[in-house]
Amino acid sequence: TGFFGCFGSDVDAIDYYKSEIEKIGKEEAEEHKKVMKDPKSIMPAAFVSFRSRWGAAVAAQTQQTSNPTVWLTEWAPEPRDVYWNNLSIPFVSLTVRRLIIGVAFFFLNFFYVIPIAFVQTLANLEGIEKALPFLEPFIETPSIKSFIQGFLPGLALKIFLILLPTILMFMSQFEGLVSQSSLERRTASKYFIFLFFNVFLGSIVTGSALEQLNTYLHQSANDIPRVIGVAIPMKATFFITYVMVDGWTGVALEVLRLRAFIMFHLKNFFLVKTEKDREEAMDPGSICLYWSEPRIQLYFLLGLVYAVVTPLLLPFILVFFALAYVVYRHQIINVYNQRYESGAQFWPNVHLRIITALIVSQLLLLGLLSTKGLEEATPALLVLPVLTIWFHKYCKHRYEPAFVRNPLQEVMRKDTLERARERNFDLKAYLADAYLHPVFKSNEVDKFYVADDPGAVEVIVPTKRRSRRITPVQSEDGGSDRLSVMESVQER
Amino acid sequence: TGFFGCFGSDVDAIDYYKSEIEKIGKEEAEEHKKVMKDPKSIMPAAFVSFRSRWGAAVAAQTQQTSNPTVWLTEWAPEPRDVYWNNLSIPFVSLTVRRLIIGVAFFFLNFFYVIPIAFVQTLANLEGIEKALPFLEPFIETPSIKSFIQGFLPGLALKIFLILLPTILMFMSQFEGLVSQSSLERRTASKYFIFLFFNVFLGSIVTGSALEQLNTYLHQSANDIPRVIGVAIPMKATFFITYVMVDGWTGVALEVLRLRAFIMFHLKNFFLVKTEKDREEAMDPGSICLYWSEPRIQLYFLLGLVYAVVTPLLLPFILVFFALAYVVYRHQIINVYNQRYESGAQFWPNVHLRIITALIVSQLLLLGLLSTKGLEEATPALLVLPVLTIWFHKYCKHRYEPAFVRNPLQEVMRKDTLERARERNFDLKAYLADAYLHPVFKSNEVDKFYVADDPGAVEVIVPTKRRSRRITPVQSEDGGSDRLSVMESVQER
Repeated sequence: TGFFGCFGSDVDAIDYYKSEIEKIGKEEAEEHKKVMKDPKSIMPAAFVSFRSRWGAAVAAQTQQTSNPTVWLTEWAPEPRDVYWNNLSIPFVSLTVRRLIIGVAFFFLNFFYVIPIAFVQTLANLEGIEKALPFLEPFIETPSIKSFIQGFLPGLALKIFLILLPTILMFMSQFEGLVSQSSLERRTASKYFIFLFFNVFLGSIVTGSALEQLNTYLHQSANDIPRVIGVAIPMKATFFITYVMVDGWTGVALEVLRLRAFIMFHLKNFFLVKTEKDREEAMDPGSICLYWSEPRIQLYFLLGLVYAVVTPLLLPFILVFFALAYVVYRHQIINVYNQRYESGAQFWPNVHLRIITALIVSQLLLLGLLSTKGLEEATPALLVLPVLTIWFHKYCKHRYEPAFVRNPLQEVMRKDTLERARERNFDLKAYLADAYLHPVFKSNEVDKFYVADDPGAVEVIVPTKRRSRRITPVQSEDGGSDRLSVMESVQER
Repeated sequence: TGFFGCFGSDVDAIDYYKSEIEKIGKEEAEEHKKVMKDPKSIMPAAFVSFRSRWGAAVAAQTQQTSNPTVWLTEWAPEPRDVYWNNLSIPFVSLTVRRLIIGVAFFFLNFFYVIPIAFVQTLANLEGIEKALPFLEPFIETPSIKSFIQGFLPGLALKIFLILLPTILMFMSQFEGLVSQSSLERRTASKYFIFLFFNVFLGSIVTGSALEQLNTYLHQSANDIPRVIGVAIPMKATFFITYVMVDGWTGVALEVLRLRAFIMFHLKNFFLVKTEKDREEAMDPGSICLYWSEPRIQLYFLLGLVYAVVTPLLLPFILVFFALAYVVYRHQIINVYNQRYESGAQFWPNVHLRIITALIVSQLLLLGLLSTKGLEEATPALLVLPVLTIWFHKYCKHRYEPAFVRNPLQEVMRKDTLERARERNFDLKAYLADAYLHPVFKSNEVDKFYVADDPGAVEVIVPTKRRSRRITPVQSEDGGSDRLSVMESVQER
């Protein structure tokens, strides 16, 4: 205390920190009050809770006002799933953001090579020697020099590819989606598109997506599948290597969790001071669906494309999927601490990508066969993509409502059950802090300990997981689906 | 009576016909009963009426069961609008039909020239002389021969083009849509696509759609707008003629109603026996939206495409639209007897086609400018279609619910108003025969006279129309929106 602890009155340390905590606590409370009163922090969006699940389901699925721009309702994500930063974005701004990100993603996908090539020209040996002259004697050692010369050119690209999912995630966040789950879904779609153009087609046509774009624009619609189709059988060995190097190794790395291991020990060494800190450092986090799912689908695409052309590739894909099944099953049950449950919301996206992969494989097969002198097969094969698209439309029309809407029969059944079982259930107290911005949650510490109580949670799948930090109790009793509808009040 | 009226007992004519009517009436009643009892005539679809508009709106907009394939609800079309033949088609069959019609329409659009060319080769002079040798001396007269030779080749095509909207309507009916209004909308879309490829692009690229298809498949995506764009300015005079011949004349013919005039006099001469028959013969029918609307949109497309390239075309288009406005306004108010009201359901389709026309005009302008040595303008112009597509998405997302859903606020207001005003309103009696298959309607004749009562209907726009045969009274009091939800019970 005092100036550098050198002069000033002696104060008991415990007393001092107590008063400090009090001061900070007061400031926090004042800040809370200020935020509560400030008209600027009133958002054009709100969570509305209903007395019954039925009411919530009706409000979420119907339109409220005759002017469709005034009030919009949608089913709220579960409390843990809310992405609070994006809640207050007005509708018009949302669509503008979507446009901007759409254009930006197009450029990222097709023109990302340009800035990387630029960085690569800078990051050669001479450039480093000029910028950091004291490294010169070190670099000029022959063995190190050859190593750097072999390694450096690809470095910028490697770093970019590692950072890519994070960049895409930022783009999705800028788009203004309001839940973690929808953010992950959107990012996964973007990542799959990138992988499709830059890894799959990029390896076959051997050129960056930018060069491909040129090809697509200047070749006829007839020639594109032909050009790609012809190149496919030649690239089979490359993709076998790719499956082994990227796929098998990727799965092995996933189960090793090398990064998490290193991070934990670093944190443990430098940051951990209390038991709670250690617990936090141990937290494995959520599974990165937007990173792992598109890669798995890329292998699915490879399998479909090569199933007819070079079946030799299939065993490798099969081994990959068997490995991935075992590993990811283990990781999900025993390691990861899923941040939210979205109720199979991911599946329609996966389905769409499988259909896309099917159509791509059919078109490429068409192109390949037409160059092998089997033009007669074309009309028969053309039926395939038409039927596939039709099947997709049928599924979308028929089964998608099950993923998007909450059926009234189901909610009514739950409502009735609950009313019969728990007559004295205090709904208001239960709902009071269900959808509270994390900042306003005062009882976070208590919750943490409650959540760790093994009796409080019902674990259906036996798991060896220890940390349950992010999972609050409330969401485990299946009652959170009544906290439901998000309403956006729009200013015209 | 008896055998050729020659022998048998004498019966009074009035008595005889009375007994005949009785007999037929009994048979009809028995047939009714049989149909009512027959389990085969139970349909997997039903109209459900609700006690309040609110209940109907909720049921129509929400999902009922957890299995999305069991129960489907949608807002019912108004009673006059129901297309009864298609009500009982199960879901799977519907999607199969849609696929079949999609493929069939593709072939109709691109390959319709083949059968017509085949018919034309048959229908030359020699063919006729061979088939009908007694016509030979008549045909061989020089003046008649030259007339036929000039006229015959185009005849098959002309007949096909006149029949086309009807053919497309049959296709839409086969698709299984359940209301007249949706049938007209679907047919209008098909007709517009046909006009776009075969009239607009067909005139510019000068080739049938089949030849165009070949071009599109074998040219690069870059070249197609360029090829078409270059041809556009050259075709301006042709389209000016087209607007005058087809557009202006078409509008003039519309106001003349020559066909209806001839048909009425033919009917009047041969068929009309009672006053009711004459009334029926006078009935002008519904306006053919699926026939007239796509043609108007074609002129809109022409206007957009030529606005920048050859503004000389614009006055002609303007005159056409002025004429069309005056004529169609008059026809709708004073002549046609609209069969149904769908509540501006047509507008989203029109909007979509306007957007399509905009994008087409922008792409063609791009192609044209890039050949005139203005490649630098391309990036700036590319922004236009992107922004247009974005605008369309924005509108669809934001305003389409207003056309598809019935807002709860509105229905609640109407419910409350009605409950306050008409306390003793007998809902059950009112609803009893609201959605009755026309066959089961016993009181059709009475209704006809009631409907003609000028006091019973509230006409907002003053009209000179006399016949009001198809418009039953019930739909004029604004209460029909409560007869609402159609439910399909699907067998899995």
